[in-house]
Amino acid sequence: MKKRLGILGGMGPMATADLYRKIVELTDADNDNGHIRTIIDSNTAIPDRTGAILSGGADPLPEMLSAAKNLISCGAECIIMPCNTAHFFLPELQRQISVPVLDMTKIAAQTCAELYPGKTAAILATRGTLATGVYARALDECGVSYIVPDDEEQGILMHLIYDVVKASKPLTPEKELWKSLLDGLREKGADYFLLACTELPILSGYLAVPGPFVDCTEELAKAAIKYCGYKLKEGCW
Amino acid sequence: MKKRLGILGGMGPMATADLYRKIVELTDADNDNGHIRTIIDSNTAIPDRTGAILSGGADPLPEMLSAAKNLISCGAECIIMPCNTAHFFLPELQRQISVPVLDMTKIAAQTCAELYPGKTAAILATRGTLATGVYARALDECGVSYIVPDDEEQGILMHLIYDVVKASKPLTPEKELWKSLLDGLREKGADYFLLACTELPILSGYLAVPGPFVDCTEELAKAAIKYCGYKLKEGCW
Repeated sequence: MKKRLGILGGMGPMATADLYRKIVELTDADNDNGHIRTIIDSNTAIPDRTGAILSGGADPLPEMLSAAKNLISCGAECIIMPCNTAHFFLPELQRQISVPVLDMTKIAAQTCAELYPGKTAAILATRGTLATGVYARALDECGVSYIVPDDEEQGILMHLIYDVVKASKPLTPEKELWKSLLDGLREKGADYFLLACTELPILSGYLAVPGPFVDCTEELAKAAIKYCGYKLKEGCW
Repeated sequence: MKKRLGILGGMGPMATADLYRKIVELTDADNDNGHIRTIIDSNTAIPDRTGAILSGGADPLPEMLSAAKNLISCGAECIIMPCNTAHFFLPELQRQISVPVLDMTKIAAQTCAELYPGKTAAILATRGTLATGVYARALDECGVSYIVPDDEEQGILMHLIYDVVKASKPLTPEKELWKSLLDGLREKGADYFLLACTELPILSGYLAVPGPFVDCTEELAKAAIKYCGYKLKEGCW
Protein backbone atom coordinates (compact mmCIF):
# COMPACT_ATOMS: atom_id res chain seq x y z
CA MET A 1 0.00 0.00 0.00
CA LYS A 2 1.34 3.39 -1.03
CA LYS A 3 1.28 5.98 1.73
CA ARG A 4 1.08 9.77 1.58
CA LEU A 5 4.08 11.57 3.12
CA GLY A 6 4.03 14.71 5.25
CA ILE A 7 7.10 16.90 5.76
CA LEU A 8 6.98 19.09 8.85
CA GLY A 9 9.37 21.69 7.56
CA GLY A 10 10.55 25.26 7.93
CA MET A 11 13.27 24.20 10.38
CA GLY A 12 14.96 25.53 8.28
CA PRO A 13 13.44 26.17 4.87
CA MET A 14 16.61 25.22 2.96
CA ALA A 15 16.89 21.90 4.79
CA THR A 16 13.25 21.31 3.84
CA ALA A 17 14.01 21.94 0.15
CA ASP A 18 17.11 19.70 0.41
CA LEU A 19 15.19 16.82 2.02
CA TYR A 20 12.44 16.95 -0.59
CA ARG A 21 14.98 17.03 -3.44
CA LYS A 22 16.72 13.97 -1.96
CA ILE A 23 13.40 12.11 -1.74
CA VAL A 24 12.65 12.83 -5.40
CA GLU A 25 16.19 11.91 -6.52
CA LEU A 26 16.28 8.66 -4.54
CA THR A 27 12.84 7.36 -5.57
CA ASP A 28 12.76 4.79 -8.37
CA ALA A 29 10.15 6.41 -10.65
CA ASP A 30 9.70 6.63 -14.41
CA ASN A 31 7.45 9.67 -14.42
CA ASP A 32 5.70 12.21 -12.17
CA ASN A 33 3.01 9.70 -11.17
CA GLY A 34 5.63 7.24 -9.87
CA HIS A 35 6.67 9.62 -7.08
CA ILE A 36 5.32 9.87 -3.53
CA ARG A 37 2.36 12.20 -2.93
CA THR A 38 3.98 14.61 -0.50
CA ILE A 39 2.50 17.42 1.56
CA ILE A 40 4.94 19.94 3.01
CA ASP A 41 4.21 22.59 5.61
CA SER A 42 7.29 24.77 5.72
CA ASN A 43 6.13 26.49 8.90
CA THR A 44 8.59 29.30 9.36
CA ALA A 45 6.71 30.49 12.45
CA ILE A 46 8.17 27.64 14.51
CA PRO A 47 10.40 29.26 17.17
CA ASP A 48 14.11 28.37 17.21
CA ARG A 49 14.56 24.91 18.75
CA THR A 50 18.05 25.52 20.09
CA GLY A 51 16.90 28.75 21.74
CA ALA A 52 14.06 26.93 23.46
CA ILE A 53 16.31 24.15 24.76
CA LEU A 54 19.40 26.13 25.78
CA SER A 55 18.10 29.52 26.79
CA GLY A 56 14.41 29.31 27.66
CA GLY A 57 13.12 30.71 24.34
CA ALA A 58 9.55 30.24 23.10
CA ASP A 59 8.27 26.64 23.02
CA PRO A 60 8.27 25.38 19.40
CA LEU A 61 5.80 22.56 20.11
CA PRO A 62 2.50 24.44 19.48
CA GLU A 63 3.58 25.54 15.98
CA MET A 64 5.04 22.10 15.23
CA LEU A 65 1.71 20.62 16.23
CA SER A 66 -0.22 23.10 14.07
CA ALA A 67 1.89 22.10 11.05
CA ALA A 68 1.47 18.39 11.82
CA LYS A 69 -2.30 18.85 11.94
CA ASN A 70 -2.22 20.61 8.55
CA LEU A 71 -0.31 17.66 7.08
CA ILE A 72 -2.74 15.15 8.57
CA SER A 73 -5.75 17.12 7.33
CA CYS A 74 -4.24 16.82 3.83
CA GLY A 75 -4.00 13.07 4.20
CA ALA A 76 -0.40 12.53 5.37
CA GLU A 77 0.03 9.00 6.71
CA CYS A 78 3.48 9.51 8.15
CA ILE A 79 5.51 12.59 9.03
CA ILE A 80 9.21 13.44 8.84
CA MET A 81 11.13 16.49 10.12
CA PRO A 82 14.30 17.80 8.45
CA CYS A 83 15.73 19.29 11.66
CA ASN A 84 17.98 17.37 14.01
CA THR A 85 17.38 19.59 17.03
CA ALA A 86 13.59 19.38 16.59
CA HIS A 87 13.84 15.68 17.38
CA PHE A 88 14.16 16.64 21.04
CA PHE A 89 10.43 17.49 20.85
CA LEU A 90 9.44 14.38 18.87
CA PRO A 91 8.15 12.26 21.81
CA GLU A 92 5.78 15.02 22.99
CA LEU A 93 4.65 15.73 19.40
CA GLN A 94 4.03 12.03 18.81
CA ARG A 95 1.90 11.81 21.96
CA GLN A 96 -0.45 14.42 20.53
CA ILE A 97 -0.96 13.06 17.00
CA SER A 98 -2.08 9.69 15.66
CA VAL A 99 0.15 9.55 12.56
CA PRO A 100 3.67 8.10 13.05
CA VAL A 101 6.63 10.49 12.99
CA LEU A 102 9.73 8.74 11.60
CA ASP A 103 12.72 9.46 13.85
CA MET A 104 15.77 10.66 11.86
CA THR A 105 18.10 10.08 14.84
CA LYS A 106 17.05 6.44 15.25
CA ILE A 107 17.15 5.82 11.49
CA ALA A 108 20.67 7.26 11.27
CA ALA A 109 21.79 5.25 14.32
CA GLN A 110 20.45 2.04 12.76
CA THR A 111 22.36 2.85 9.56
CA CYS A 112 25.55 3.27 11.62
CA ALA A 113 25.00 -0.08 13.34
CA GLU A 114 24.36 -1.86 10.03
CA LEU A 115 27.08 -0.24 7.93
CA TYR A 116 29.87 0.05 10.51
CA PRO A 117 29.40 -2.63 13.19
CA GLY A 118 31.98 -2.37 15.96
CA LYS A 119 33.30 0.93 14.63
CA THR A 120 33.27 4.35 16.28
CA ALA A 121 31.31 7.35 14.94
CA ALA A 122 32.15 11.01 15.44
CA ILE A 123 28.93 13.01 15.90
CA LEU A 124 29.15 16.21 13.86
CA ALA A 125 26.30 18.46 14.98
CA THR A 126 25.60 21.92 16.37
CA ARG A 127 26.09 22.61 20.09
CA GLY A 128 22.28 22.78 20.32
CA THR A 129 21.75 19.30 18.88
CA LEU A 130 24.52 17.87 21.06
CA ALA A 131 22.96 19.48 24.15
CA THR A 132 19.67 17.68 23.51
CA GLY A 133 21.44 14.32 23.64
CA VAL A 134 19.18 12.98 20.87
CA TYR A 135 22.02 11.37 18.94
CA ALA A 136 23.86 10.06 22.01
CA ARG A 137 20.62 8.33 23.06
CA ALA A 138 19.86 6.92 19.60
CA LEU A 139 23.41 5.60 19.14
CA ASP A 140 23.44 4.10 22.65
CA GLU A 141 20.19 2.27 21.91
CA CYS A 142 21.74 0.75 18.78
CA GLY A 143 24.97 -0.15 20.58
CA VAL A 144 27.00 2.24 18.42
CA SER A 145 30.09 3.72 20.06
CA TYR A 146 30.84 7.38 19.33
CA ILE A 147 32.95 10.37 20.20
CA VAL A 148 32.10 14.06 20.06
CA PRO A 149 34.42 16.95 19.15
CA ASP A 150 36.22 18.69 22.02
CA ASP A 151 35.46 22.35 22.66
CA GLU A 152 38.03 23.70 20.19
CA GLU A 153 36.97 21.27 17.45
CA GLN A 154 33.33 22.10 18.13
CA GLY A 155 34.21 25.78 17.67
CA ILE A 156 35.63 25.00 14.22
CA LEU A 157 32.53 23.02 13.35
CA MET A 158 30.26 25.89 14.44
CA HIS A 159 32.33 28.26 12.28
CA LEU A 160 31.92 25.97 9.26
CA ILE A 161 28.17 25.60 9.82
CA TYR A 162 27.26 29.20 10.70
CA ASP A 163 29.93 31.48 9.19
CA VAL A 164 30.44 29.49 6.00
CA VAL A 165 27.53 27.28 4.85
CA LYS A 166 24.62 29.20 6.44
CA ALA A 167 26.29 32.48 5.39
CA SER A 168 26.66 31.23 1.77
CA LYS A 169 30.42 31.88 1.81
CA PRO A 170 32.81 30.10 -0.61
CA LEU A 171 33.48 26.54 0.58
CA THR A 172 36.78 25.84 -1.20
CA PRO A 173 38.99 27.95 1.16
CA GLU A 174 37.71 25.84 4.08
CA LYS A 175 38.93 22.53 2.69
CA GLU A 176 42.08 22.30 4.84
CA LEU A 177 40.17 23.25 8.01
CA TRP A 178 37.51 20.61 7.33
CA LYS A 179 40.16 17.99 6.49
CA SER A 180 42.19 18.73 9.63
CA LEU A 181 39.03 18.57 11.78
CA LEU A 182 38.22 15.12 10.39
CA ASP A 183 41.86 13.97 10.67
CA GLY A 184 41.97 15.08 14.32
CA LEU A 185 38.79 13.16 15.12
CA ARG A 186 40.15 10.13 13.28
CA GLU A 187 43.29 10.24 15.44
CA LYS A 188 41.05 10.19 18.51
CA GLY A 189 39.39 7.00 17.31
CA ALA A 190 36.62 8.01 14.90
CA ASP A 191 36.20 5.49 12.07
CA TYR A 192 33.45 7.48 10.32
CA PHE A 193 31.46 10.70 10.61
CA LEU A 194 27.79 11.21 11.34
CA LEU A 195 26.58 14.35 9.51
CA ALA A 196 23.96 15.25 12.11
CA CYS A 197 23.40 18.82 10.95
CA THR A 198 21.55 19.60 7.73
CA GLU A 199 24.26 22.05 6.58
CA LEU A 200 27.08 19.50 6.68
CA PRO A 201 26.15 17.32 3.68
CA ILE A 202 26.46 20.49 1.57
CA LEU A 203 30.00 21.11 2.87
CA SER A 204 31.07 17.49 2.72
CA GLY A 205 29.61 16.89 -0.76
CA TYR A 206 31.36 19.93 -2.18
CA LEU A 207 34.79 19.57 -0.56
CA ALA A 208 35.10 15.83 -1.28
CA VAL A 209 37.39 15.10 1.67
CA PRO A 210 37.32 11.31 2.29
CA GLY A 211 34.94 10.17 5.09
CA PRO A 212 33.25 7.81 5.30
CA PHE A 213 30.12 9.74 6.20
CA VAL A 214 26.57 8.88 7.24
CA ASP A 215 24.23 11.68 6.02
CA CYS A 216 21.25 11.78 8.41
CA THR A 217 19.01 13.72 5.96
CA GLU A 218 19.68 11.18 3.21
CA GLU A 219 18.97 8.24 5.53
CA LEU A 220 15.68 9.88 6.54
CA ALA A 221 14.78 10.34 2.85
CA LYS A 222 15.49 6.66 2.12
CA ALA A 223 13.53 5.48 5.16
CA ALA A 224 10.54 7.64 4.16
CA ILE A 225 10.57 6.26 0.59
CA LYS A 226 10.53 2.69 1.90
CA TYR A 227 7.95 3.40 4.61
CA CYS A 228 5.61 4.93 2.01
CA GLY A 229 5.82 1.75 -0.10
CA TYR A 230 8.08 3.03 -2.89
CA LYS A 231 11.35 1.62 -4.19
CA LEU A 232 14.77 3.20 -3.91
CA LYS A 233 16.57 3.99 -7.15
CA GLU A 234 19.00 1.24 -8.13
CA GLY A 235 22.35 1.61 -6.43
CA CYS A 236 20.78 2.75 -3.14
CA TRP A 237 20.31 0.20 -0.43
CA MET B 1 0.91 42.16 5.33
CA LYS B 2 2.75 38.87 5.01
CA LYS B 3 0.88 36.22 3.04
CA ARG B 4 1.04 32.45 3.20
CA LEU B 5 2.13 30.78 -0.06
CA GLY B 6 0.76 27.59 -1.58
CA ILE B 7 2.65 25.56 -4.19
CA LEU B 8 0.47 23.31 -6.33
CA GLY B 9 3.23 20.87 -7.16
CA GLY B 10 3.99 17.36 -8.34
CA MET B 11 4.09 18.53 -11.98
CA GLY B 12 6.82 17.31 -11.74
CA PRO B 13 8.23 16.67 -8.28
CA MET B 14 11.76 17.83 -9.18
CA ALA B 15 10.47 21.12 -10.58
CA THR B 16 8.56 21.53 -7.31
CA ALA B 17 11.76 21.03 -5.28
CA ASP B 18 13.62 23.42 -7.59
CA LEU B 19 10.99 26.16 -7.31
CA TYR B 20 10.91 25.94 -3.52
CA ARG B 21 14.73 26.05 -3.32
CA LYS B 22 14.74 29.17 -5.53
CA ILE B 23 12.14 30.85 -3.29
CA VAL B 24 14.28 30.18 -0.21
CA GLU B 25 17.50 31.31 -1.91
CA LEU B 26 15.98 34.51 -3.29
CA THR B 27 14.24 35.65 -0.08
CA ASP B 28 16.05 38.26 2.00
CA ALA B 29 15.92 36.56 5.42
CA ASP B 30 18.29 36.42 8.37
CA ASN B 31 16.87 33.25 9.90
CA ASP B 32 14.18 30.58 9.50
CA ASN B 33 11.45 32.90 10.77
CA GLY B 34 12.24 35.48 8.06
CA HIS B 35 11.11 33.10 5.30
CA ILE B 36 7.65 32.68 3.76
CA ARG B 37 5.28 30.21 5.39
CA THR B 38 4.82 27.82 2.49
CA ILE B 39 2.45 24.88 2.02
CA ILE B 40 3.26 22.47 -0.80
CA ASP B 41 1.05 19.72 -2.15
CA SER B 42 3.24 17.70 -4.47
CA ASN B 43 0.26 15.86 -5.92
CA THR B 44 1.82 13.18 -8.05
CA ALA B 45 -1.64 11.83 -8.92
CA ILE B 46 -2.25 14.72 -11.34
CA PRO B 47 -2.49 13.17 -14.83
CA ASP B 48 0.03 14.24 -17.48
CA ARG B 49 -0.92 17.68 -18.80
CA THR B 50 0.61 17.24 -22.25
CA GLY B 51 -1.21 13.92 -22.66
CA ALA B 52 -4.52 15.56 -21.80
CA ILE B 53 -4.02 18.43 -24.26
CA LEU B 54 -2.47 16.61 -27.21
CA SER B 55 -3.92 13.11 -27.10
CA GLY B 56 -7.13 13.09 -25.08
CA GLY B 57 -5.60 11.72 -21.86
CA ALA B 58 -7.24 12.02 -18.42
CA ASP B 59 -8.27 15.53 -17.36
CA PRO B 60 -5.78 16.87 -14.79
CA LEU B 61 -8.17 19.52 -13.45
CA PRO B 62 -9.94 17.47 -10.73
CA GLU B 63 -6.62 16.51 -9.06
CA MET B 64 -5.24 20.05 -9.47
CA LEU B 65 -8.38 21.31 -7.79
CA SER B 66 -8.06 18.79 -4.96
CA ALA B 67 -4.48 19.96 -4.31
CA ALA B 68 -5.51 23.64 -4.45
CA LYS B 69 -8.22 22.96 -1.87
CA ASN B 70 -5.64 21.29 0.39
CA LEU B 71 -3.43 24.37 0.14
CA ILE B 72 -6.33 26.71 0.88
CA SER B 73 -7.44 24.60 3.87
CA CYS B 74 -3.90 25.07 5.26
CA GLY B 75 -4.20 28.83 4.90
CA ALA B 76 -2.56 29.52 1.53
CA GLU B 77 -3.40 33.04 0.37
CA CYS B 78 -1.97 32.68 -3.12
CA ILE B 79 -1.02 29.71 -5.26
CA ILE B 80 1.76 29.06 -7.78
CA MET B 81 2.35 26.10 -10.10
CA PRO B 82 5.83 25.00 -11.22
CA CYS B 83 4.63 23.52 -14.51
CA ASN B 84 4.41 25.52 -17.71
CA THR B 85 1.99 23.20 -19.48
CA ALA B 86 -0.37 23.20 -16.46
CA HIS B 87 -0.97 26.91 -17.09
CA PHE B 88 -3.29 25.89 -19.92
CA PHE B 89 -5.73 24.84 -17.16
CA LEU B 90 -5.19 27.94 -14.99
CA PRO B 91 -8.29 29.92 -16.07
CA GLU B 92 -10.64 27.00 -15.28
CA LEU B 93 -8.83 26.30 -11.97
CA GLN B 94 -9.05 29.96 -11.03
CA ARG B 95 -12.80 30.02 -11.74
CA GLN B 96 -13.29 27.32 -9.11
CA ILE B 97 -11.19 28.72 -6.23
CA SER B 98 -11.20 32.03 -4.42
CA VAL B 99 -7.43 32.37 -3.84
CA PRO B 100 -5.40 34.00 -6.65
CA VAL B 101 -3.16 31.78 -8.78
CA LEU B 102 -0.09 33.72 -9.96
CA ASP B 103 0.45 33.13 -13.67
CA MET B 104 4.05 32.14 -14.48
CA THR B 105 3.54 32.77 -18.21
CA LYS B 106 2.32 36.35 -17.67
CA ILE B 107 5.03 37.05 -15.09
CA ALA B 108 7.75 35.80 -17.45
CA ALA B 109 6.25 37.80 -20.34
CA GLN B 110 6.26 40.98 -18.22
CA THR B 111 9.92 40.35 -17.36
CA CYS B 112 10.72 40.05 -21.07
CA ALA B 113 8.93 43.33 -21.79
CA GLU B 114 10.74 45.14 -18.97
CA LEU B 115 14.22 43.70 -19.47
CA TYR B 116 14.36 43.51 -23.26
CA PRO B 117 12.00 46.13 -24.76
CA GLY B 118 11.82 45.94 -28.55
CA LYS B 119 13.90 42.76 -28.62
CA THR B 120 12.87 39.29 -29.84
CA ALA B 121 12.60 36.23 -27.58
CA ALA B 122 13.00 32.59 -28.63
CA ILE B 123 10.52 30.43 -26.72
CA LEU B 124 12.28 27.28 -25.53
CA ALA B 125 9.59 24.86 -24.33
CA THR B 126 8.29 21.35 -24.93
CA ARG B 127 6.03 20.63 -27.88
CA GLY B 128 3.22 20.23 -25.33
CA THR B 129 3.68 23.70 -23.87
CA LEU B 130 3.99 25.25 -27.34
CA ALA B 131 0.79 23.50 -28.44
CA THR B 132 -1.15 25.14 -25.58
CA GLY B 133 -0.16 28.57 -26.86
CA VAL B 134 0.16 29.85 -23.27
CA TYR B 135 3.44 31.65 -23.90
CA ALA B 136 2.47 32.98 -27.32
CA ARG B 137 -0.63 34.51 -25.72
CA ALA B 138 1.22 35.95 -22.72
CA LEU B 139 3.97 37.47 -24.89
CA ASP B 140 1.41 38.90 -27.35
CA GLU B 141 -0.43 40.56 -24.46
CA CYS B 142 2.82 42.22 -23.34
CA GLY B 143 3.73 43.24 -26.87
CA VAL B 144 6.84 41.05 -26.86
CA SER B 145 7.91 39.68 -30.22
CA TYR B 146 9.13 36.10 -30.36
CA ILE B 147 10.15 33.20 -32.54
CA VAL B 148 9.84 29.46 -31.93
CA PRO B 149 12.26 26.74 -33.02
CA ASP B 150 11.55 25.03 -36.37
CA ASP B 151 10.76 21.34 -36.36
CA GLU B 152 14.39 20.18 -36.48
CA GLU B 153 15.47 22.60 -33.73
CA GLN B 154 12.47 21.56 -31.65
CA GLY B 155 13.59 17.93 -32.04
CA ILE B 156 17.02 18.84 -30.62
CA LEU B 157 15.35 20.67 -27.73
CA MET B 158 13.12 17.67 -26.95
CA HIS B 159 16.23 15.46 -26.97
CA LEU B 160 17.99 17.78 -24.51
CA ILE B 161 14.92 17.93 -22.22
CA TYR B 162 13.83 14.28 -22.28
CA ASP B 163 16.89 12.16 -23.17
CA VAL B 164 19.43 14.23 -21.23
CA VAL B 165 18.09 16.31 -18.30
CA LYS B 166 15.02 14.21 -17.42
CA ALA B 167 17.08 11.03 -17.93
CA SER B 168 19.85 12.36 -15.63
CA LYS B 169 22.50 11.90 -18.36
CA PRO B 170 25.80 13.85 -18.32
CA LEU B 171 25.27 17.40 -19.53
CA THR B 172 28.83 18.29 -20.60
CA PRO B 173 28.79 16.28 -23.88
CA GLU B 174 25.72 18.28 -24.98
CA LYS B 175 27.40 21.67 -24.76
CA GLU B 176 28.07 22.00 -28.52
CA LEU B 177 24.53 20.91 -29.42
CA TRP B 178 23.03 23.43 -26.97
CA LYS B 179 25.34 26.18 -28.21
CA SER B 180 24.58 25.51 -31.88
CA LEU B 181 20.84 25.48 -31.14
CA LEU B 182 21.08 28.90 -29.52
CA ASP B 183 23.37 30.23 -32.26
CA GLY B 184 20.91 29.06 -34.92
CA LEU B 185 18.01 30.81 -33.19
CA ARG B 186 20.13 33.95 -32.77
CA GLU B 187 20.81 33.95 -36.53
CA LYS B 188 17.04 33.84 -37.09
CA GLY B 189 16.58 36.94 -34.98
CA ALA B 190 16.39 35.85 -31.34
CA ASP B 191 17.97 38.39 -28.99
CA TYR B 192 17.39 36.29 -25.86
CA PHE B 193 15.95 32.97 -24.75
CA LEU B 194 12.87 32.24 -22.66
CA LEU B 195 13.49 29.08 -20.59
CA ALA B 196 9.84 28.01 -20.57
CA CYS B 197 10.45 24.42 -19.47
CA THR B 198 11.47 23.63 -15.91
CA GLU B 199 14.31 21.34 -17.08
CA LEU B 200 16.08 24.02 -19.08
CA PRO B 201 17.48 26.18 -16.25
CA ILE B 202 19.35 23.07 -15.08
CA LEU B 203 20.93 22.61 -18.52
CA SER B 204 21.63 26.29 -19.08
CA GLY B 205 23.04 26.86 -15.58
CA TYR B 206 25.43 23.95 -15.90
CA LEU B 207 26.67 24.46 -19.45
CA ALA B 208 27.21 28.20 -19.09
CA VAL B 209 26.68 29.03 -22.76
CA PRO B 210 25.99 32.79 -23.07
CA GLY B 211 22.31 33.77 -23.31
CA PRO B 212 20.85 36.04 -22.20
CA PHE B 213 18.09 33.93 -20.67
CA VAL B 214 14.82 34.58 -18.86
CA ASP B 215 14.19 31.68 -16.42
CA CYS B 216 10.41 31.39 -15.98
CA THR B 217 10.69 29.39 -12.72
CA GLU B 218 12.98 32.00 -11.20
CA GLU B 219 10.68 34.85 -12.26
CA LEU B 220 7.75 33.02 -10.67
CA ALA B 221 9.76 32.59 -7.45
CA LYS B 222 10.59 36.32 -7.34
CA ALA B 223 6.98 37.33 -8.06
CA ALA B 224 5.71 35.04 -5.29
CA ILE B 225 8.20 36.48 -2.77
CA LYS B 226 7.06 40.02 -3.56
CA TYR B 227 3.34 39.12 -3.65
CA CYS B 228 3.64 37.52 -0.20
CA GLY B 229 5.11 40.74 1.21
CA TYR B 230 8.76 39.65 1.52
CA LYS B 231 11.90 41.26 0.14
CA LEU B 232 14.19 39.85 -2.53
CA LYS B 233 17.78 39.23 -1.55
CA GLU B 234 20.04 42.12 -2.53
CA GLY B 235 21.20 41.90 -6.11
CA CYS B 236 17.84 40.59 -7.32
CA TRP B 237 15.38 43.03 -8.80
